This record gives sequence, C-alpha cells and structure tokens, in this order.
Amino acid sequence: MSESAPSSLSHYSAPLRRFGASLLVRYVAIGAGLIAMTVLTVPEARSASGLWLQALLWCCFAYFAIDCGLRLRSAWRLGAARHYLLSAPGVIDILGVLPVPIALGFGAPAETAWLLASLWVLKLAQNSPGFAQLGRVFVLEARPLASVLVLFLIALFLASAAMHVIEREGQPTAFGTLPASLWWAVVTLTTTGYGDEVPLTNLGHLLGAAVMICGIATFGLWTGILATGFAAESRRRNFIQTWDVVSKVPFFKTLDPTAITEITHTLRRIELPPRTAVIRRGKIGDCMYFIAAGEVQVDVAPTPVLLGAGTFFGELALLGDQVRTADVVTTKQSTLLVLDLADFRELMAHHTELAGAIEAEAERRLGDIKRRRELHLHGGAPSP
Amino acid sequence: MSESAPSSLSHYSAPLRRFGASLLVRYVAIGAGLIAMTVLTVPEARSASGLWLQALLWCCFAYFAIDCGLRLRSAWRLGAARHYLLSAPGVIDILGVLPVPIALGFGAPAETAWLLASLWVLKLAQNSPGFAQLGRVFVLEARPLASVLVLFLIALFLASAAMHVIEREGQPTAFGTLPASLWWAVVTLTTTGYGDEVPLTNLGHLLGAAVMICGIATFGLWTGILATGFAAESRRRNFIQTWDVVSKVPFFKTLDPTAITEITHTLRRIELPPRTAVIRRGKIGDCMYFIAAGEVQVDVAPTPVLLGAGTFFGELALLGDQVRTADVVTTKQSTLLVLDLADFRELMAHHTELAGAIEAEAERRLGDIKRRRELHLHGGAPSP
Amino acid sequence: MSESAPSSLSHYSAPLRRFGASLLVRYVAIGAGLIAMTVLTVPEARSASGLWLQALLWCCFAYFAIDCGLRLRSAWRLGAARHYLLSAPGVIDILGVLPVPIALGFGAPAETAWLLASLWVLKLAQNSPGFAQLGRVFVLEARPLASVLVLFLIALFLASAAMHVIEREGQPTAFGTLPASLWWAVVTLTTTGYGDEVPLTNLGHLLGAAVMICGIATFGLWTGILATGFAAESRRRNFIQTWDVVSKVPFFKTLDPTAITEITHTLRRIELPPRTAVIRRGKIGDCMYFIAAGEVQVDVAPTPVLLGAGTFFGELALLGDQVRTADVVTTKQSTLLVLDLADFRELMAHHTELAGAIEAEAERRLGDIKRRRELHLHGGAPSP
Amino acid sequence: MSESAPSSLSHYSAPLRRFGASLLVRYVAIGAGLIAMTVLTVPEARSASGLWLQALLWCCFAYFAIDCGLRLRSAWRLGAARHYLLSAPGVIDILGVLPVPIALGFGAPAETAWLLASLWVLKLAQNSPGFAQLGRVFVLEARPLASVLVLFLIALFLASAAMHVIEREGQPTAFGTLPASLWWAVVTLTTTGYGDEVPLTNLGHLLGAAVMICGIATFGLWTGILATGFAAESRRRNFIQTWDVVSKVPFFKTLDPTAITEITHTLRRIELPPRTAVIRRGKIGDCMYFIAAGEVQVDVAPTPVLLGAGTFFGELALLGDQVRTADVVTTKQSTLLVLDLADFRELMAHHTELAGAIEAEAERRLGDIKRRRELHLHGGAPSP
Repeated sequence: MSESAPSSLSHYSAPLRRFGASLLVRYVAIGAGLIAMTVLTVPEARSASGLWLQALLWCCFAYFAIDCGLRLRSAWRLGAARHYLLSAPGVIDILGVLPVPIALGFGAPAETAWLLASLWVLKLAQNSPGFAQLGRVFVLEARPLASVLVLFLIALFLASAAMHVIEREGQPTAFGTLPASLWWAVVTLTTTGYGDEVPLTNLGHLLGAAVMICGIATFGLWTGILATGFAAESRRRNFIQTWDVVSKVPFFKTLDPTAITEITHTLRRIELPPRTAVIRRGKIGDCMYFIAAGEVQVDVAPTPVLLGAGTFFGELALLGDQVRTADVVTTKQSTLLVLDLADFRELMAHHTELAGAIEAEAERRLGDIKRRRELHLHGGAPSP
Repeated sequence: MSESAPSSLSHYSAPLRRFGASLLVRYVAIGAGLIAMTVLTVPEARSASGLWLQALLWCCFAYFAIDCGLRLRSAWRLGAARHYLLSAPGVIDILGVLPVPIALGFGAPAETAWLLASLWVLKLAQNSPGFAQLGRVFVLEARPLASVLVLFLIALFLASAAMHVIEREGQPTAFGTLPASLWWAVVTLTTTGYGDEVPLTNLGHLLGAAVMICGIATFGLWTGILATGFAAESRRRNFIQTWDVVSKVPFFKTLDPTAITEITHTLRRIELPPRTAVIRRGKIGDCMYFIAAGEVQVDVAPTPVLLGAGTFFGELALLGDQVRTADVVTTKQSTLLVLDLADFRELMAHHTELAGAIEAEAERRLGDIKRRRELHLHGGAPSP
Repeated sequence: MSESAPSSLSHYSAPLRRFGASLLVRYVAIGAGLIAMTVLTVPEARSASGLWLQALLWCCFAYFAIDCGLRLRSAWRLGAARHYLLSAPGVIDILGVLPVPIALGFGAPAETAWLLASLWVLKLAQNSPGFAQLGRVFVLEARPLASVLVLFLIALFLASAAMHVIEREGQPTAFGTLPASLWWAVVTLTTTGYGDEVPLTNLGHLLGAAVMICGIATFGLWTGILATGFAAESRRRNFIQTWDVVSKVPFFKTLDPTAITEITHTLRRIELPPRTAVIRRGKIGDCMYFIAAGEVQVDVAPTPVLLGAGTFFGELALLGDQVRTADVVTTKQSTLLVLDLADFRELMAHHTELAGAIEAEAERRLGDIKRRRELHLHGGAPSP
Repeated sequence: MSESAPSSLSHYSAPLRRFGASLLVRYVAIGAGLIAMTVLTVPEARSASGLWLQALLWCCFAYFAIDCGLRLRSAWRLGAARHYLLSAPGVIDILGVLPVPIALGFGAPAETAWLLASLWVLKLAQNSPGFAQLGRVFVLEARPLASVLVLFLIALFLASAAMHVIEREGQPTAFGTLPASLWWAVVTLTTTGYGDEVPLTNLGHLLGAAVMICGIATFGLWTGILATGFAAESRRRNFIQTWDVVSKVPFFKTLDPTAITEITHTLRRIELPPRTAVIRRGKIGDCMYFIAAGEVQVDVAPTPVLLGAGTFFGELALLGDQVRTADVVTTKQSTLLVLDLADFRELMAHHTELAGAIEAEAERRLGDIKRRRELHLHGGAPSP
C-alpha cells in the first residue's frame, strides 16, 4: 500500500490542481496553520490577536476541507471512494478535517479544539516517497531491532527494580514506587538525563553508571542495525528506480546486459523542475547527464539547441575537457541520470565499448550543431 | 550453547503446547505479571486493589511454574534434566519460579517479594533467535570494543581526578571525594547530564567540555564498530539460513554452483503463519516467491490451485507484467524465499539461463492450470 | 561552486603570501581574536586589561582587513572582483571585516560590537576542502534525511500537543502553552534533557518515555543514513583524487586498464610538507610509496639519492623484507601514493605482472645505486 | 611506533615474568590500586582504614616500581634504555612510578599525592594491540573528522554569541559573559544537557532547538565517518594478520593465488590459552579450524590424537555432518584460523578444488587414526 499511496494521492489531487493549489501553497498552509495553532495557546497572544489567529486557522481549515472534498469527489467518480478513505493519504485528510469541528461541537474552548489542528503536521508525510524506504528498513531488520528492544526492556525492568530496592529508603518520592523508578530508568537508559530523579547512595551510583553504559551499548547496536539496513535498502531502491529510467534511454540499449547492470548501479536519478540550471558555463564538471524524461536547452551559438528524452549532455567532462562550455537549463519538469567521473572510469576499464559509443554519439551531435550553424550563416537557405 | 538453546526450548515445551499455551498466552502472562508487579509497589493501588493484583500475580506464577515443571518432566524423561537446568532457558525458567516463594518464606513483605517477579522480563529473550546474532557481533568485535572501553576508563579516571582537584574547594559535596567525582564523570562521558553535579570554575568548564567531546568521540567509535560488526554478521547469517532452505527447492538444483551462491545471497527468507495473504490481486508487485516449506493457495478461476514446497509464484512481476493477477494466501505455516526485482535483474545479467528456467516452469504451470480449467468445463470428463 | 572555492581562495591569496602570511599565522590570528573577544565580555577582565584586549583585537582585525583588501585587489586586477565577493570565501572575508566597524559606528559599546568578531570562526572553514565532501553527503542523501526530519517534526508536534493537554493543569508554567510544551519536546526528542520541564503525572511519564525512544530511533536512522552516504562519497572522492595523481606516475602506464582501476581504488593519497620523515631505518614497514609530485631523499651510503615525481620507494616491505633499510625524507612539498601490504597482496593474486614490474624497477634502481657507489670508490673517475 | 610498542613491552618484561608476574596479577594490581586510591579520598574511609589503604597502595606501587626497574635494567643491558624511556610503554611506566613520591616529597597530603596514582589507569592500554587500529581510523579519516570539528566550533561560537545577546538581560549569571554562554553551547551541542543554564525567552528557545538539532546532525556525521573508517581498517587489519598466519599453514600452499587471497579474507584468527575447549562433542558445528601455531588434542578412542601447527580439524561440519564427534582441547597457547560454513560454501562455488583438498586430507588423517587404533588393538605389535 505504501507504494501505491503516493500515486493515488497525485491521482485524486488532479481536480485541486485546477483549483490552483501547488505543493508550495500546501506547505504554506500547513506551516501557517501549525504556527497559528501554537500561538493561540499563549494567553497574551490570544487576548491580543485571538480573532485574527482564528480567522487564519479557519482559512487553512477551509483549504484542507476543500482539498479533501475535491479528492473524495474525484475518487467517488472513479468508484474508489472507499479505497481513498482507507488509504493513508485519505485517513490523513480526514484527520485534518473532522476532529476540530467535532471538538467545537462538543463545546470545547477554541484554544483546546484547535490543538487538534496539530494533526495537520501529518500532511507533511503525505507527499514524501522516502517513507516507504524508511519503513522497509524497519521491516527488513525487524528481527534484530526487536532483540535490541527486548534487551532494552530487560535492562529497564531489572535496573528499576534494583534501584527501587536500593534508594526507596533515602528517596521515597523519587524511587519509592516502581513506576517512579521505571521513569528514572527510561530517562537514564536513553541518556536523556533530566536530573529530576538521581540516585544518591554509592550503590545507586554504581548501578546508575551501569545503566548509562548499557544505554549507550544498546543505542550503538540500534544505530548499527539501522545503518546496515539502510545501506542495503538504499542500494536496492536506487537500482530499481534507475533501471526503470535506463530502459527508456535508447543509448543504453546498444550495450550488453552486464554493462547495463553495472551502469544502472552507478547512475543517480535526479528530478528537476523547469527552468533549473543543470550546467553553468566555465564551471569545472565531473559528471555527464542522460535525459530520461523532459527536455533541456543547451545555450550554444547561434541558436540554443533543445535536447529531449533519450539524449545526453556534459559528456566532454568525462572525455578529457573538464571546463563546461555552455549553460544547460531544463525547459520542463525533467528526470536526469547522472554518471559520475569516478564511476565512468571504472566502467571504462571493463567495458571499453562504452566510451566509443559515447564519443560516437557526441561527434554525431557536434556535427549536427555545425550543420545548423552553417544553415544559420547562409541565411536559412540550404547550402548547395 | 546460544545456538542450541532455542531448539531445546521448543523441544521441552512440547507438553505445554498440549496444555494449551501458545506464544501469545505466554506474552500476555509476562506482560500482565510485570504490570501487576509494578502497580503493587504503589501504596494507593496496593490499598485499593492489592488482593486482586496479588491474585493476578499468583495466576501468572502458577502458569510459569506449571510451564517450568512440564518442561523439566519432559527433559527428565529424555534424561536431559541436568542439561535443561544448566541451559539458558532452564536458568530463566528457574529464576521465574524459585525467588518469589523463597523471599516470601523468609518473611519479606508481599510488595518486596514480588519485586523479584521482574525477573520474568528475561522470558522475553527465551524465544528470540536474534540474541545469538547480537551476541556474535560482540564476540567478533570483542577486541576493538574492549579498546574503546579502556579508552572510556582512562578518560573516566583522569577526568574525575582532575575535576576533584579543580572543584573540591568550591563544591565539597559534589567533587569533595573521588567517588563523587567519578559519578560526575560517568554522567558526563555518557552525555546523560543529570545536572546534579556541575563544575562552576572556568577551568572546570574547560575540562568538562573536553570530557563531553571525548564522550561523543568514544561513543561514535563504539557505534561504528558495532555497525561494522553487524553488517558482516547480518550478511553471514542470511547466507547460512537461506542456503539451508535453498537446498530444499528442486528448482535451484538445475543451476550451476556460482549461480546458486549468488542467488543465495540475494534471497530473503520470510516465515508466515497460516491464512496470511502474500500477494493481493491488482497490487503492483516487485518480487517473486519460492516456497521452501508449507503451502499456498492461488485463487485462480475456476478452482484455486495449491502450490507446495519446491514451487514458486509471482514470477510474472519479474518477467514484465507488474500487476498481480491473483490473490495468494498461505494455508499452513510456510517458509518463503523472496527474490527482489533488483536482484533478479542483476542475476539475469550474469546468468541468462535463470530467466529461461523460470519462464519454462511458469509456462508449464500455466498449461497445467489451462488443462484443469478445460477439465472443469467438460464436466470432469476427460477430453478426447 | 564548492569545488572551485578553495582554488579561488589560494588564487587570490597569492599576494598575501608575499606579504608573509602562512596558514599558521592565519590560524593564530583566528584563535587569538576569538579568545580575546570571549574574554572581553567578562566584566572583571574588561576592567583589568580591557585596553590590551582591544589592542589585540584591532591587530587581528587589521590582519584580516589587509588580507581581504589584498585579495580583493588581486581579484580586481583579474577582473573577477564581483566573482570573489559573491564566492563563499569572499563573503566570509567581508563578514570578518565590515560588521565590527559598522556596529562601533552605530554607537554600540565595545564589548557588544566585538561580539561580531565571532564571525571570524567561519574563516576556519575557508581552507578546508573536506566541506565539499560533507556537503555532497547531505545532497546525495537529501531525500531520506528530509523524511527523517519530517518524522521528527510529526513526533514533535503531536507529542507537545498531547503533553500540553496532559500536564497543563498541574504545571501551568512548564506546559501551560504550546510553545513551552514544544520546548520540552525538542529537549526530550534530542535526548538533551535539561530537566527544566519534566512531566509529573503517570500519563505524562508514559508519553515522555515514548518520546525519548522515538528520539533515539529517529537519531539512529539519521546516523545510519549519514554513515551510508559518507561511505559512498568517501569511496568516490578517493577514486577521483587518486586517479588524477595515478595518471602522472609513468610506472602505472605499463599496466592494463583493469589493473589501473583496481590499484586506484587501493591507493591512498597523502600530502607531506618538506623535511618530513616518511620512512625510518629499522622500523617495520607495511606499505610502499609512489611519488606523484615533489621529491624525497633516500639516505643510502655513500651519498643520499634523490627520487623525483614518477618514482617509488619502500617496495622491499612488500617483496619480503619488512625492516626498512634507510631513512627517507621529503625535500619539497610532496604528494605520495601509499600502497598497503594487504592491498598489494590482493592485487598480486589477480595481476601477477604488477610484482614483476615493481621488482624489475627496484633492481634497475639498485643497480643504479651500486654504479654510483663504485663511481664514488674509484674517486669519481669512470670505470673502464 | 605504535606497532613496535607491544613487542618491545613483551621484550623488556621477560625478567618480570620470571619474577612471577602474569597479566592477571598486573590487572589485579591496577584494579586494587585504583579502588584504594578512590576510597582514600573519602574522609570517613580515611579515618577508619586509612593505614590499610595506604599499605595496599604502597604494595601496588612497589609492584609497579619493581616492574619498571626490571624492564629498565633489561633494556639497559640491550643498550636500549633510551629507546624504552621514550617509548609509550616506558613513559606510562615512569608516570606510574615517579609522580607519587615526588608529590609526597613536596609535602602534599597523602590523599592528594595518591590522586596521581590515577595515572595507573594508563597501564590498561599498555598491553592492548587494539589501540593501533583505533588510532589508524582517526588518521585515515583525519580530514573529514577535522571538518566536522570545524563545523562544531562554528556552531559553538555563533550560537553562544547569539545566545549571549538574547539572554544576557534576563539571566546575567548564566549568559552574562561569553565564557558562560560557551559553556551552555558545549553542554547543549553535545546533547549532555545539564540544565544548569537554560534559555528562558522564546527567541532563546528557538536558538536552543536549532543548536540541539545541529548537535545531533554533527554527531551523526562524526559517527558515520568513524563507522566508514573502521569498516575499511577492520577489513585491512584482518587481511594482514590472517595472511601472516596463512603463510605458515602448508595446506594452503596447494591452492592457487586467487583462492589464497579469497580464503584469507574469510578466515578469522583466534588466540586461545592452553586447556581451552575448542569443540564440544554433540554440539552443532558451523565452522572448521586450521592450526597456525600451538597444538590441540582430539579426544578420539582409544587414545587422544595430538594435532600440531599446519593441520586442521572440525572439517566434517563443512562436508555435511554438523554434529561434532569429539572434544577438541588446546594443549598450548594456540593460534587458530576459523573458516565459517557460509564462507566455505561461497569459496566452494568458485574453487571446487578446495573441497577436494580438504576431503583428501581428512581421509588421510582418518586412515592414520584407524592405523593407530589397529596398532593399539594388536598390543603395540606391528600388524603383518
């Protein structure tokens, strides 16, 4: 579901886009709403500008309500209303709309009811594809992570029971009950260390030191497991994403399968909005770009050249000449594949045909530019 | 011993399973016991519902005592009573049964005696195979970890002696003795920072800053070592576990040894309980499954097909068609091997025979389904 | 820009070097300025030695002003004044010169105006090429890091809203407003744990424990992502840097491309100032050195031998004899490539021609030394 | 020097070993000395048992003085006294002997003079070869680690200057001077969080939150760099150590160079004291052992077999039979090389000759045992 969620979000949000809501407006609404809700809980601010804050909150609310309503309608028309309401984006949309009016309806004071607007923070996660990746890390490493949690629980209970026995005489408030002692153990094992409950006896100090060192050891394991899992998942995700794009670039089809697999591992996918500079003239370059989708404009004299999906540029940086000779700017939302100099040189050692292919293509394109320039010089008339 | 422990646990627990104790009941008993024990130390709760809490604790106790007794009897019959009592699960079982009655027998008040029930938390580790893995990481990296601990001890002693000299005049309570100063050093090196003892002089602040930075550097090394060790151990464990299962799948026997080794590294083993959905129709798939043990049911028309150990399913996702065409549900406890799209494509580049084998097998099975369907249409009579 | 910044800094700083400013003087000026500025804020020190401190600060200021002025002039002459002022080093130079006089001009007291000298700390980053590397890690892993930040924000807002509701009755100062509650949540999620705001109810303790564990989980992910990104970037950067140097060593040109790629991965580049001992006679060696730039002097009898760029030394350690037979000292600023014993043995297994090439070169050089020695014994006269 | 240090320590300590000092006695002396020195600073303990504590301290002192004296004498005889005194172990020895008498000579009270005995903690690092490894990680990653430290310093100075400006009005004691503000910044950036200085204004809270998040980001980078460096160094060190040992095992000489390199990467070296059980009969095994140095005794009927350096055992676990059939115990200090099942199977896929070699050797040795058994049955007389 996590993989289909983002796509369904963009699907149902089509009507809203006509309504004029870009991603930026959305983030502004989330930010403004959260800040207004936060300020509303301060009594001085409430008495000074409470009405303005509530007006702002109602505006954000209206925006989210219309957004949710339009998506629901568009899902309804596709016969997928139930699927939308049960999907993660749907639940987040509903959680952003229903709770505040319900709380106000039950007679809660405004500043308390608007606290439920803190659920709007969940909308930040709605458009982020990175969560599926983080989630997979936890799933892949579930077993060792669970073992670390069990270690944590064991240390927690044994330490707090022992500390309760050691310190309950001297500090009946802080360690007199096991719940209080557990609170100390959590605060210490996580190395948060508020200092509201501190052992005072020598034995308590020894146990406390042991608990802190346990905490650090546990945390080190936890981090080590997540690092291992993330490294594996990162490699996998990059391969999958790049492969889908590589298969759309005709240039790679001329290579043999082993070379394609190797190049897929080394390519990095970047998504660029329109009118973004990819290469600046005169800068030192260390990578070349393949266009998987979209279009870029190369500012060469006399007229700029447009390169579409399936072509590449910046290859001179890999073939010897490191200073960029022209500005390159995207004209549409584009997906580019970046091939680093380091990776290119490694690929070259095993697949010499790659450089040949890139050089041939580069020459072909240079010839193309020359011909166009000649055409331009001769006033547009075909040269005899 | 760590490797044989889980198997011996499941061995001796056979009688209890007839007694009706699933893993869930066990976890509920552990949780209920720990919560009741915790609440019992709160005087208000004790006076209000102390009898009910003690009754609940005795129930949990009875459960664990019977559990331990049955295991001991079954071990006795196998002539392995001594082996059981000396094994980790045996020690944990005994620690869960003996201490509380002994403490009560020696006249300890109920709320103190039941504190020993906190040892029940150890039972959480009894069924977890992940501990052997974490333990191996510590064994493999024992030497560098010991060096980090020595660094920690050196920083601890030198810092606390220096701080004792610097601050004992100004703060005789906090830094007047070396034990008190050591307590400060532990709290600071682990970055816990209770704030109960804080240097006040400028020199003390400088030393304190150095200790904190030492603490972070030490901790970073510690985490780095554990991450390195865990990555190596994780790779090794996965290979061993998967190899055992791969050797039971006849399909892989047709591949050459290098391909088997490579595929073993990429397969991920998952264990599923009965009646679990593996694939849902209409979802987008990015992996295929081999059945190492157990059975799944593929819901194709007209009648569902059962696939047993040694077969595979979901292969269409890797051969081009990403939308799943049928629900697949386990019918028994099953062990599946998952082959990711990314890994499949990499394997393909080096072992083209793999795709051929999978395609051939898939076609054979499709033909099988077709024949059955025809059989069904013709009323069960053999077609001429 | 980050890659061209260091080069432009060294470019514009040429005049200053004639002015007599080595890197050491620069660091001394930064350190002295920051310490003087810090001490100036202490009232006792100000009344005792305020004039001396201000004199020291004006000296540092003059140094930085002249430094900035000379660079600006040299950039001006190259027609790149605008480029310099917009580059990172230029902005840092300007930030180190303008703010203090402006603040004094607006009538701020000296101790407040000189606080702006804390911007001089930025100059530490001006000469450090490592920042481009760290920056790339954040760029490469931007997406998962952003997801972790969103998780952090979600936990922050939901936890502080919930804690505000739970604790506002009991602790109106600490949790009575959402901003105060957010402060608690940040302090707890980062496991800083000041202890100025601590939940007191049981429900608050439960929520607090959950927040701490969330904090550790989030932080573990964050560290794991950075570790993964840094490992990839470190490998890439090392390859690029070494490749540039390897291409200048004639010896490597005799190897085939695959061997060159492999050796490039294993070489480590080190930069040494003049008169630095590389090898000490009698020590046990485990690596050999290639000279990419600069020169070293080998102290063999009768007269020391000078080795220039493109040659190598210390190869006997890899060919069997581990005790170093002569001192080797750099005579100029030199760039060496280090080949470790471990890596050499691995390379050997796949590229046996490598050892032959090294042995042949070593023998040739030994013959050379012998001939010189004979020349020396025969009084400089050529032997017939 | 770090590599030659441990060897020189063991060299000069030869006389002391005759004096009767094993490593255990040494650790006991260090531990007892540190504890006695710590307890001596507590006034109550001093008045109750001060004489006994001082007597114990003088005993430890005498032990370390004699130890140092004997080493110095043995170094003197070898003409290496100066080398010993300048080496790390020599400096640590001298630091353990001279300071206390000097302080007592200058009239310092006993409890203060003995504080210098905290330098004995350095002796823990004298025998630990792991420090060279940790040191190399810091050297290899010096550049990125320095960049992180610079980032830390920049955050430290800018944050404390800003916080000084924000909070000096409200809290003149905590933030009134820059040194005080720097102390807050260090405590916060390292996430120690004593809570002795806490911002109170809203602006201060915002800045504080930013500083905490900076601290976590910096720390994550630091840990990531150390993890990357440690992984590389760990792989390198393991290869070097194992290669030295592999070259002493005749069995490996029959393999081709590529196989030797691969097997060297997978072997793990363990050092065992005499009379240690390596394999226990009836346990499940997942590795085999090569004896690089020392000797083991295999308890097979009728008489135990001794295996010396160059042989191997436990190979049946890799060839199909996982239950160990005999106890194996070391008879001397031994160095073993462990080959894991996972690694063996991977090696097998590429080097099928390896299994053949191991099987042949195993059969040869089995025949040997059979012949001995027959010899035993026939009463020692040679069978015709």
